[in-house]
Amino acid sequence: MKIMIINPNSSQDMTDADAVAARSAAREGTEIVAVTPEYAPASIESFYDEYLCVPGILNEIRKGDENGFDAYVIACYGDPGLHAAREMTDKPVIGIAEASLYFACQLAARVAIVTIIPRFRVPVEDMVAGYGLSSKVIVRTTPVYVLDVEKDFDGSMEKLRQECFRARDEDDAEAICLGCAGFADFADSLEAELGIPVLDGVVCATKMAESIFDMGRKTSKYKTYRFPERKAYTGLMQHFGSKSEAADVAAE
Amino acid sequence: MKIMIINPNSSQDMTDADAVAARSAAREGTEIVAVTPEYAPASIESFYDEYLCVPGILNEIRKGDENGFDAYVIACYGDPGLHAAREMTDKPVIGIAEASLYFACQLAARVAIVTIIPRFRVPVEDMVAGYGLSSKVIVRTTPVYVLDVEKDFDGSMEKLRQECFRARDEDDAEAICLGCAGFADFADSLEAELGIPVLDGVVCATKMAESIFDMGRKTSKYKTYRFPERKAYTGLMQHFGSKSEAADVAAE
Amino acid sequence: MKIMIINPNSSQDMTDADAVAARSAAREGTEIVAVTPEYAPASIESFYDEYLCVPGILNEIRKGDENGFDAYVIACYGDPGLHAAREMTDKPVIGIAEASLYFACQLAARVAIVTIIPRFRVPVEDMVAGYGLSSKVIVRTTPVYVLDVEKDFDGSMEKLRQECFRARDEDDAEAICLGCAGFADFADSLEAELGIPVLDGVVCATKMAESIFDMGRKTSKYKTYRFPERKAYTGLMQHFGSKSEAADVAAE
Amino acid sequence: MKIMIINPNSSQDMTDADAVAARSAAREGTEIVAVTPEYAPASIESFYDEYLCVPGILNEIRKGDENGFDAYVIACYGDPGLHAAREMTDKPVIGIAEASLYFACQLAARVAIVTIIPRFRVPVEDMVAGYGLSSKVIVRTTPVYVLDVEKDFDGSMEKLRQECFRARDEDDAEAICLGCAGFADFADSLEAELGIPVLDGVVCATKMAESIFDMGRKTSKYKTYRFPERKAYTGLMQHFGSKSEAADVAAE
Amino acid sequence: MKIMIINPNSSQDMTDADAVAARSAAREGTEIVAVTPEYAPASIESFYDEYLCVPGILNEIRKGDENGFDAYVIACYGDPGLHAAREMTDKPVIGIAEASLYFACQLAARVAIVTIIPRFRVPVEDMVAGYGLSSKVIVRTTPVYVLDVEKDFDGSMEKLRQECFRARDEDDAEAICLGCAGFADFADSLEAELGIPVLDGVVCATKMAESIFDMGRKTSKYKTYRFPERKAYTGLMQHFGSKSEAADVAAE
Amino acid sequence: MKIMIINPNSSQDMTDADAVAARSAAREGTEIVAVTPEYAPASIESFYDEYLCVPGILNEIRKGDENGFDAYVIACYGDPGLHAAREMTDKPVIGIAEASLYFACQLAARVAIVTIIPRFRVPVEDMVAGYGLSSKVIVRTTPVYVLDVEKDFDGSMEKLRQECFRARDEDDAEAICLGCAGFADFADSLEAELGIPVLDGVVCATKMAESIFDMGRKTSKYKTYRFPERKAYTGLMQHFGSKSEAADVAAE
Repeated sequence: MKIMIINPNSSQDMTDADAVAARSAAREGTEIVAVTPEYAPASIESFYDEYLCVPGILNEIRKGDENGFDAYVIACYGDPGLHAAREMTDKPVIGIAEASLYFACQLAARVAIVTIIPRFRVPVEDMVAGYGLSSKVIVRTTPVYVLDVEKDFDGSMEKLRQECFRARDEDDAEAICLGCAGFADFADSLEAELGIPVLDGVVCATKMAESIFDMGRKTSKYKTYRFPERKAYTGLMQHFGSKSEAADVAAE
Repeated sequence: MKIMIINPNSSQDMTDADAVAARSAAREGTEIVAVTPEYAPASIESFYDEYLCVPGILNEIRKGDENGFDAYVIACYGDPGLHAAREMTDKPVIGIAEASLYFACQLAARVAIVTIIPRFRVPVEDMVAGYGLSSKVIVRTTPVYVLDVEKDFDGSMEKLRQECFRARDEDDAEAICLGCAGFADFADSLEAELGIPVLDGVVCATKMAESIFDMGRKTSKYKTYRFPERKAYTGLMQHFGSKSEAADVAAE
Repeated sequence: MKIMIINPNSSQDMTDADAVAARSAAREGTEIVAVTPEYAPASIESFYDEYLCVPGILNEIRKGDENGFDAYVIACYGDPGLHAAREMTDKPVIGIAEASLYFACQLAARVAIVTIIPRFRVPVEDMVAGYGLSSKVIVRTTPVYVLDVEKDFDGSMEKLRQECFRARDEDDAEAICLGCAGFADFADSLEAELGIPVLDGVVCATKMAESIFDMGRKTSKYKTYRFPERKAYTGLMQHFGSKSEAADVAAE
Repeated sequence: MKIMIINPNSSQDMTDADAVAARSAAREGTEIVAVTPEYAPASIESFYDEYLCVPGILNEIRKGDENGFDAYVIACYGDPGLHAAREMTDKPVIGIAEASLYFACQLAARVAIVTIIPRFRVPVEDMVAGYGLSSKVIVRTTPVYVLDVEKDFDGSMEKLRQECFRARDEDDAEAICLGCAGFADFADSLEAELGIPVLDGVVCATKMAESIFDMGRKTSKYKTYRFPERKAYTGLMQHFGSKSEAADVAAE
Repeated sequence: MKIMIINPNSSQDMTDADAVAARSAAREGTEIVAVTPEYAPASIESFYDEYLCVPGILNEIRKGDENGFDAYVIACYGDPGLHAAREMTDKPVIGIAEASLYFACQLAARVAIVTIIPRFRVPVEDMVAGYGLSSKVIVRTTPVYVLDVEKDFDGSMEKLRQECFRARDEDDAEAICLGCAGFADFADSLEAELGIPVLDGVVCATKMAESIFDMGRKTSKYKTYRFPERKAYTGLMQHFGSKSEAADVAAE
Repeated sequence: MKIMIINPNSSQDMTDADAVAARSAAREGTEIVAVTPEYAPASIESFYDEYLCVPGILNEIRKGDENGFDAYVIACYGDPGLHAAREMTDKPVIGIAEASLYFACQLAARVAIVTIIPRFRVPVEDMVAGYGLSSKVIVRTTPVYVLDVEKDFDGSMEKLRQECFRARDEDDAEAICLGCAGFADFADSLEAELGIPVLDGVVCATKMAESIFDMGRKTSKYKTYRFPERKAYTGLMQHFGSKSEAADVAAE
């Protein structure tokens, strides 16, 4: 099977790192293709960035469906545009946050997400509430910006490490979800130090995608996630106007 | 004061109708400017449309701030991009759904949103949950597409009318929020027939904007809604890279 | 339009201050009449006081309807008797807590109510839960009794100020709602110091009342808020027995 | 022990019936005194009635404490003024709704409240939500006014009976709480017909009061339910100004 | 009436103490029989222990029904097997946690459960959520193992005492539920020291059982709690295969 | 890797069918061993059966850990004893209900569980609430007993089929989870007929187990799921007394 990992920001380094993370847990026979969208913010650290990265994500999925991909992973811990992506395609679309939370809840009774800068707390908490997991999952922020990991790996690791310990010791977190796709490299050493499961979302989402593929299931095309109605889009967005046969059928 | 009403789809007719609705309840001294974004879907009827209309909305707000607007109204009943918009500006940004629900809850103990096609139920219900109002507000859909109102006014009205009666008689709805900006013209006659308050979101949002302006309050720039971090955007989105001084300050 | 601001306690000073606050944000053409009920507690600081101030409030509304008022504001941060008041009249009845919370939620993602003495925390939290806003709003108490503001303005201000800073810095509150009608005078200077929106409920409720009036909407008379059934009341309460034609119709 | 059953409306017949119900399940040694407040509505069928019956209730408790009562039962299925009453006294105060719901939840997994006229649904549902039981308890209304039971016993019984069957057969209710103190006489025959537990609140509350007395426990006087602050009340309410030593202590 | 108190662990000392606690508040005419199951863990301190004590509990109820008991109390603060027990018998089955929480909520607005070792926090919190009481009840753990009370009464008391004070002073708990049947002896002295109600579950459950008996009510046999279907059990569990006529009827 | 599928009832036919289902989606290299516990009910259709099947399940896990299994699947749609099992072992333990719900929520916005007889609705709904998914998942029952599938395959299929259509057409279910391990054979043909994803829990749980194994993660042994304290068990349960070194460490 062929999984597209979409890094919704414009950092090719992060895209490459996502590919490494995804491959680290993929089964033989799973082809991982990580992509950087044609249009994207340098990093995703606000609702603003989250919304504006979505057209780039959806554009990759459009291309992916033309190129025979079997599943998609949105590799930003806010799961931006997830529901829209599920409408566009009947292939499974996996969010790294959603995937990591479901795995974490099968390994631990209380989970902490340790994420980037403080302003990102509410977007993440709202997302967690949307998944129904508010009573099991707490969110902690760090002073780490997304691109800090590339600039200062050790310093970022140390800040993250401190907050993970606080999550374990002050909040009774029994497992940690790393709240940024860029944190993947920290997972194993943090797990070793903390003694509790530490999950990277890209890895988790890859496994979810493989699993759904193996089960032969696809995104439901009934009601909420049916293909978008066929219609014109104007200006910069004109290429998002739906022209596929699938949409024609859906529009009837 | 000067309020920008942003119709996030590409229908100039709907933009004009929004302006009429907003002016119908605006106080003297309130200048209403309704705009059609430079890039937009023909209508908004899915998560897909909701996400893809956001860049167009944010672009209008960017221009609006340069042109001295005092408040913004996002005139689609999914309140697309609302949180992102609140980050971009310190002027109040009002969603027509949120505004209408708050007014409705001050007039009635149980509220129904009567909206467009069935696939839009989950997006609306998720939004209502985000506002904390799930226990007071129910959502009903109709067979009406957004642009049906322009094509078949009477037929659309009749379908909407039937569902409003069901909401009142079967769900005990004590007030109705019309779940599409395009339904504004139906409000008064539906209210007359139903005998319960029927609220149009554009009107409601206009009054919220005026009120916040009169109180001299602005969007909080602390934590969640602080200005987006300054960063580059690539490709089609490059003009969304923040360059404002405000963002510089925020980024420090 | 003519708005009655009902200060449910017996302090004429507070009634006068409510009038000043309401007028500070009212539009031209809005007549503000602030009243002290004929029977009231000296201050409202418990469930006991909240319940016992209600007959005085309802009595003012009864008189108000005879005197052509267009809207009512209940000016105590527990919104005492709000639902009962909405049954009595088809004019809008606005609670200062409900109004301030709705405005705050349009300006900030997390809100703190900073209120009076510790025993008032549960009444306020229960009210917030009733509005569906528990996940966005936290409640902080102070050692300030309602009438302390009149006795020791500066000392009260200082205690309130400290708690507002704690709400911002420890709880990530992005906006503050002042949890007592008597705190109105503190709003602007606290906002200046804190750098986040600080809302006074009397001002907020006044704007809500004006807005609903401008939209030509009234309290729903269907199901929950229909006029009370016509019936006799005994003893001290006998003047609350309904005699209006409206009630006759409702009773049929 | 001596329990005061307070029928908050002015019907002496209903007060007498409450006494009969309470005595039917009371242990030997429990003295039941049922009272009709000095000021009360003819019946309680709205938020309006619920608020306006509270002063009468609290006045009885004030007298009760002077006369050595050990516990109080508020015998209206909206539990009006319950929290205020708990502040006034350190004796247990039991609401018939709360008591019946707790017993019902120990006998069945899903519970229906079958109550009076449709407008009373929201007050009851709000109360149930306040007790945390919304996911287990559904509310059904009937066309029965409170005083209908006195006027047309058989007709009222029949209407109630039909709705109880619907609750069992359509909502899977496994136990019924009768949602009006005036329905006590129907409990046993309805239970016989329905084959599921049918609980009367007055009986339930009496047993709760006895139990708490037997355990030697009293209402907590810490924080929320501490005695009301000593203060003056004006006009009709002046006798509610606190003068007790207990309140003096509390006010320190 | 005859109440069976089932101590689900194998400590005869704790069984004896439960009997003492139950008798301390029972009415004359209530016969208390406390039993130690034939198979049980030494103590219950995990989900593991909670599940594995259930067969022993259910076996006692089976014998109890053959011996004319009128009610059952499960005397472990996790209420293990409560729903299963309610299916087996039409007599009331009371959990000490559920009973104590309902009484506490009638005496105080905020309640703390102070229980055993930290790992037991999630089982207790999940149980509280199941009763709908999460917003009123907080859970605190201590370093006390169940059998510590027998080994070091004073040391256990001191650890419990410290946590109760924290619950009152840091969490605003207005009443305490002792979160282990073995803590019964501490209730009165803790209440005296803390000045807020301290409830022991065995006592509370005994009073609930008496009350339901006095009201002549039984466990609903409709839907959820109907008798288990008649079927074979294999191996160690074979004696749990239902053979009673009641089950036959239910199975039809 | 080696996965143990535990069918908690005594039907060897169902155990065999579970093995077939698990193998249908397992990757090469995954060894599936399906077991029937030494002591079990004939079927699981009540809380009673759910509790009494747990010792048999835990006994298999104890043996499994001695025999080098890498993961466990509890193959009953009530996920009986899941939390207890997670305490016993550091290998992942997957519940078929939890696994299927997480996959379904990644494929559809609204999910229906279609399960066995009506009395099983509350156990399933309580479980769903425990996973936080009540707002997305509805439960429908059928007249099908667990063993009916073996006795009357076609009749059972038809009853299930009807209810699945109702779930889709009346409740807007966009995906179906089959609410009994015995329904696995129906999944593909129901999916073909309904046109929406139909998930079997055994398949889903197998994929979850493989995924967690591939990621190299294990059950958290911090706080809630740490190994049970070492202690004696009496009577029939004596072999559940912990003797493992792991537990010794944990007990320190």
